[in-house]
Amino acid sequence: MSGNTLGLLFAVTTFGESHGPAIGCVVDGCPPGMELSLDDIQPELDRRRPGTSRHVTQRQEPDRVEILSGVFEGRTTGTPIALLIRNEDARSKDYGNIARSFRPGHADYSYWHKYGIRDHRGGGRSSARLTAPVVAAGAIARKWLQAEFGTVIRARMSQIGSIPIPFSSWDEVGRNAFFAPDSGVVPKLEAYMDDLRRAGDSCGARIDAVAEHVPVGLGEPLYDRLDADIAHAMMGINAVKGVEIGAGFASVAQRGSEHGDELTLQGFASNNSGGVLGGISTGQPITVSLAIKPTSSIRTPRRSIDLDGAPTVVETFGRHDPCVGIRAVPIVEAMLALVLIDHALRHRAQNAGVRVATPAIPGSFS
Amino acid sequence: MSGNTLGLLFAVTTFGESHGPAIGCVVDGCPPGMELSLDDIQPELDRRRPGTSRHVTQRQEPDRVEILSGVFEGRTTGTPIALLIRNEDARSKDYGNIARSFRPGHADYSYWHKYGIRDHRGGGRSSARLTAPVVAAGAIARKWLQAEFGTVIRARMSQIGSIPIPFSSWDEVGRNAFFAPDSGVVPKLEAYMDDLRRAGDSCGARIDAVAEHVPVGLGEPLYDRLDADIAHAMMGINAVKGVEIGAGFASVAQRGSEHGDELTLQGFASNNSGGVLGGISTGQPITVSLAIKPTSSIRTPRRSIDLDGAPTVVETFGRHDPCVGIRAVPIVEAMLALVLIDHALRHRAQNAGVRVATPAIPGSFS
Amino acid sequence: MSGNTLGLLFAVTTFGESHGPAIGCVVDGCPPGMELSLDDIQPELDRRRPGTSRHVTQRQEPDRVEILSGVFEGRTTGTPIALLIRNEDARSKDYGNIARSFRPGHADYSYWHKYGIRDHRGGGRSSARLTAPVVAAGAIARKWLQAEFGTVIRARMSQIGSIPIPFSSWDEVGRNAFFAPDSGVVPKLEAYMDDLRRAGDSCGARIDAVAEHVPVGLGEPLYDRLDADIAHAMMGINAVKGVEIGAGFASVAQRGSEHGDELTLQGFASNNSGGVLGGISTGQPITVSLAIKPTSSIRTPRRSIDLDGAPTVVETFGRHDPCVGIRAVPIVEAMLALVLIDHALRHRAQNAGVRVATPAIPGSFS
Amino acid sequence: MSGNTLGLLFAVTTFGESHGPAIGCVVDGCPPGMELSLDDIQPELDRRRPGTSRHVTQRQEPDRVEILSGVFEGRTTGTPIALLIRNEDARSKDYGNIARSFRPGHADYSYWHKYGIRDHRGGGRSSARLTAPVVAAGAIARKWLQAEFGTVIRARMSQIGSIPIPFSSWDEVGRNAFFAPDSGVVPKLEAYMDDLRRAGDSCGARIDAVAEHVPVGLGEPLYDRLDADIAHAMMGINAVKGVEIGAGFASVAQRGSEHGDELTLQGFASNNSGGVLGGISTGQPITVSLAIKPTSSIRTPRRSIDLDGAPTVVETFGRHDPCVGIRAVPIVEAMLALVLIDHALRHRAQNAGVRVATPAIPGSFS
Repeated sequence: MSGNTLGLLFAVTTFGESHGPAIGCVVDGCPPGMELSLDDIQPELDRRRPGTSRHVTQRQEPDRVEILSGVFEGRTTGTPIALLIRNEDARSKDYGNIARSFRPGHADYSYWHKYGIRDHRGGGRSSARLTAPVVAAGAIARKWLQAEFGTVIRARMSQIGSIPIPFSSWDEVGRNAFFAPDSGVVPKLEAYMDDLRRAGDSCGARIDAVAEHVPVGLGEPLYDRLDADIAHAMMGINAVKGVEIGAGFASVAQRGSEHGDELTLQGFASNNSGGVLGGISTGQPITVSLAIKPTSSIRTPRRSIDLDGAPTVVETFGRHDPCVGIRAVPIVEAMLALVLIDHALRHRAQNAGVRVATPAIPGSFS
Repeated sequence: MSGNTLGLLFAVTTFGESHGPAIGCVVDGCPPGMELSLDDIQPELDRRRPGTSRHVTQRQEPDRVEILSGVFEGRTTGTPIALLIRNEDARSKDYGNIARSFRPGHADYSYWHKYGIRDHRGGGRSSARLTAPVVAAGAIARKWLQAEFGTVIRARMSQIGSIPIPFSSWDEVGRNAFFAPDSGVVPKLEAYMDDLRRAGDSCGARIDAVAEHVPVGLGEPLYDRLDADIAHAMMGINAVKGVEIGAGFASVAQRGSEHGDELTLQGFASNNSGGVLGGISTGQPITVSLAIKPTSSIRTPRRSIDLDGAPTVVETFGRHDPCVGIRAVPIVEAMLALVLIDHALRHRAQNAGVRVATPAIPGSFS
Repeated sequence: MSGNTLGLLFAVTTFGESHGPAIGCVVDGCPPGMELSLDDIQPELDRRRPGTSRHVTQRQEPDRVEILSGVFEGRTTGTPIALLIRNEDARSKDYGNIARSFRPGHADYSYWHKYGIRDHRGGGRSSARLTAPVVAAGAIARKWLQAEFGTVIRARMSQIGSIPIPFSSWDEVGRNAFFAPDSGVVPKLEAYMDDLRRAGDSCGARIDAVAEHVPVGLGEPLYDRLDADIAHAMMGINAVKGVEIGAGFASVAQRGSEHGDELTLQGFASNNSGGVLGGISTGQPITVSLAIKPTSSIRTPRRSIDLDGAPTVVETFGRHDPCVGIRAVPIVEAMLALVLIDHALRHRAQNAGVRVATPAIPGSFS
Repeated sequence: MSGNTLGLLFAVTTFGESHGPAIGCVVDGCPPGMELSLDDIQPELDRRRPGTSRHVTQRQEPDRVEILSGVFEGRTTGTPIALLIRNEDARSKDYGNIARSFRPGHADYSYWHKYGIRDHRGGGRSSARLTAPVVAAGAIARKWLQAEFGTVIRARMSQIGSIPIPFSSWDEVGRNAFFAPDSGVVPKLEAYMDDLRRAGDSCGARIDAVAEHVPVGLGEPLYDRLDADIAHAMMGINAVKGVEIGAGFASVAQRGSEHGDELTLQGFASNNSGGVLGGISTGQPITVSLAIKPTSSIRTPRRSIDLDGAPTVVETFGRHDPCVGIRAVPIVEAMLALVLIDHALRHRAQNAGVRVATPAIPGSFS
């Protein structure tokens, strides 16, 4: 697999730079016969679109997607689906001063030494903008999973900077600019973000995601385990520094008598496994949590070096997210959908002929 | 890539069940001309071998590896290297009572529903034993990286159950049964483990690993990023529930002004990135931390269901690790080596012709 | 690898249907730093463009390619290069009568049964038009190979229908509408083609291709042998029914004493191997010959069945090639370039450190 | 995919050198629950085993295969199946004189320049012996295809050297040492082979293979077309120099009105397509023909150069096949089975949900 492709059977290859003519992706392997139109894709892109609140990047990109192939008379044909998004609001001049220096915490230094050439404008290919095509592809995956299994995938912010965000209801997530599942904490978050913006600084975030109604049996025990591929996909999102499944790092201090989820006629007694055992889904909800580092593009002057190796100071002025994590919620959902559909297809490739008499236990979807 | 293969260019395909005739792997893509013998591989296997202390599984497996191919007159030929390890001490009778039930926290339930058939003996392919071939393959990778770049890969325990383990010196790691980099905490750990064993219970563990002298430039920005592939590989180790790179989950509460590692003539001022930026190595040490859940095979009776869907109780009596994590240290090192060599080969495939005038900064290896 | 991707390290993923909005491809893995512009790509597309002579399809497609990504300030960045070609002259009405029936010798029947849905317009994804993106990608590969090794790739027609075409000079190939390396046979070919067109019928073709200045050592002995991958790529061209390397099918009746190419100080004494031995390039010219079947879209009425399984007769009236093979010459060159660059990158990934004291023999490029 | 792996979902990775300790393979992705034992595999190996007639290599290798994993209580588990064959009769001294020179027509020269090291004994990894693991893997694939679809795969010799072999009956194939489907030609073949042996020379061969009861719909139109993957696999067999599907090279001189297979209620009127259209199986028999070059290991002295680049003469004395093609028949069948099962799994991964009302036509299996 080429490095810019995610997935084996439902394979998404993305392309594009932040300030190039366009960004997009090719989705190869989508099952045929599914109804698909822009109405399935555009709303997902709009959820992540910059400019929707004062708390995210002020770059105005309509992010209008165009379907170039793979759909005929409103249905997928089974052939590759190409999605294109033109870049419309790319203010290159905002980035001029960083052409010759490396922004700390950003990919500039590593790209330069890897390729000997770097499209510095807006972060080039390392820009968060490149998650748009993935969100578009994820919308296709999500639709198929929902139709096939009734799968529901949702993510929400669980911490911004030093502020934990309690869970009250999924319904709240769509009602505020933070994807927070609680309305009470919102004013606190707004104040916190305004302070950050004034200070020219940024903060990290923690996102929790859940996939429900995932059938048992997805995942290849070694090495394309479902949890390993989820971790891989999540770490493929810009700025992610950590991934947990189920009890995650809390497992370290747990006892086996406490961690192992007992099986009863009413269902699993707990879900420390996070819905994955031995690399295979159990049918329980799949729970993932990930850590997103603070944005590196800030107004605070930072020490760096330039292309000649001489010391310099970097300050970025363009339009930036004080908290990249805020927009990542739809991306996390998309990634989870892409991994699940890939494994659903892989599972049925090998095991479509398997018949198991043992009933799946309640809450474990089979 | 097939599900049981790790890596693209340095590809390791493993096979074998805990109680089958043998376990092993095929390593495809190793550069030719490197000296290789059992002396490079056997010591690594011995580090993880069961039976080396009372704190790990009392199964006596010599784990003698045999090189079946790919080496001629003491040097790698560039053709696949097959490594074989016969299973010698497989007490199948210890597992008889679980043939018809699913052990909570273990892969039994998910395997059954995925394949409709399950080799229940010793956990079949989900057994920790299956990490032996990976450790063998990792020894080959480690040797090449060390010769090519001077890369040093080391891992150590940083927490067992509720007991944090301080770092005093790498030299201590090989001197106790816990891979602990500190001698002072060892009595405490021994007491803790003895208590667990008597209680018939288990605990989790946290392992920290570091790779030094990794050249800048390894990793494919989307989606086969170096950190994403590391996370994928680590989650491919049995019982891992979380992976962090660099500051990891601590990044959530950090400010951008604090997290971003400044570049100076003396080197990077910090290493919150963990040696990876934008998915590409910076040349700084790569730091990884992972969480291992407590073993699910414990003497405490646990509720479960059997193959007919009826309630039952499971108690396992065979030989088990009260803390799987203790043996995982060499496995973590092996996985890190495998990911790094794969990316080293991928990088030189595409970029061998790149010449960068900008000097790498000190501590960033180029 | 997904089914619509060609290559492992220099991976080309194509998309698009004959009558959809656009066709194109994403090229992933191109080495960075190479100068690249439309001037490198457009001429290759023009060579294959329909409407350039009365002997090929009268569909007027300018086939203007647009580079959407992967190039910065005139050089490749190492990130994916997306190429887009809008469909401009798609006369869907010409195809209306075949929406409900299957054209004999065409992919209609097999697509219908595979996907349950078929974009019937212009052959959908099975159209010869889909070779345009591959030719564009091939232009990039060809440029790199030429700069890196001095590789020269050329193809020519060696037979059209029942008429053999002698070889006089490569210079002649670009001077007639048949890619024939001989001017004397052209009038005969023109008369033959005019007869076919009037009869509403079609004929097959044989194409010979040669790649010179290919370094020794490319190819993975089992199973991604260089010749196997060449055969795979050539069979990936619409309408190809056979592929030969070197002496090809003539090898059957040869003696070993005659077939084996002796090695002398002046070079190899012959080239029955076609430049590939044991799946690896020898440095000799790589010679490939392939057979293209006659076009299935003809005016002659042909028996078929329709979507309901009832008998029907099919006659196609749109614009068609009486000899598809005529336009395939640039496609064959492109495919050869794509396979060679992929293997060049694979070879240097594993073997960049190999130093061989034995000199390559003359005519065998090392 | 690593270079030594064949297939994407039913992936076979082979290892081993002719004179190393053992050869074998790992089969990953086999559907679970299928009965599998040595009785399914050993007979296929015995068909190709050296020493079974005076017309093939006189090396006595029992080729006893051992199943190391992936089978439990007589059924496949869905986990990797490792097959091992020990090398028992490797007379290394027979090869001593070629350690320092390159045999014309053999892979020696290309391996040396690729890897800088070469296991010269018996051809190392380029030896025809390496087809044994593939035949073993093919037996598994064949069994599954037969159970799933009733697929029947058969191959036969159609020409040896300059002698065409007529087709009388499949039953004859197993009754003579040439896999010839006709008894009348056998004495002529025996005389021809004896002459060659006395002369110390060799000849080529042509093999025809047919797969019947292959369902319609297998193959990914671009680029993993069924015919392209068949060509790739066949060219992966040692010594193959050409592959044809259906009418093959005869297509060149055919008219479209003659080549296109009409569809009628009684079935397809012809099979020039060879069972593949647009890269997808039609349900008709898949017909493949391939050309095998004459063995390069002959007693006739041949000019070559040695490791220092000086002229030398090469004569090989060990045990050799005067016609490699004779033993290739089971290998061709195995390769066809491997490609078909891989595509069957890929097809059901993407299209298991497709329902087509149009009936398949007779003789086209659906």
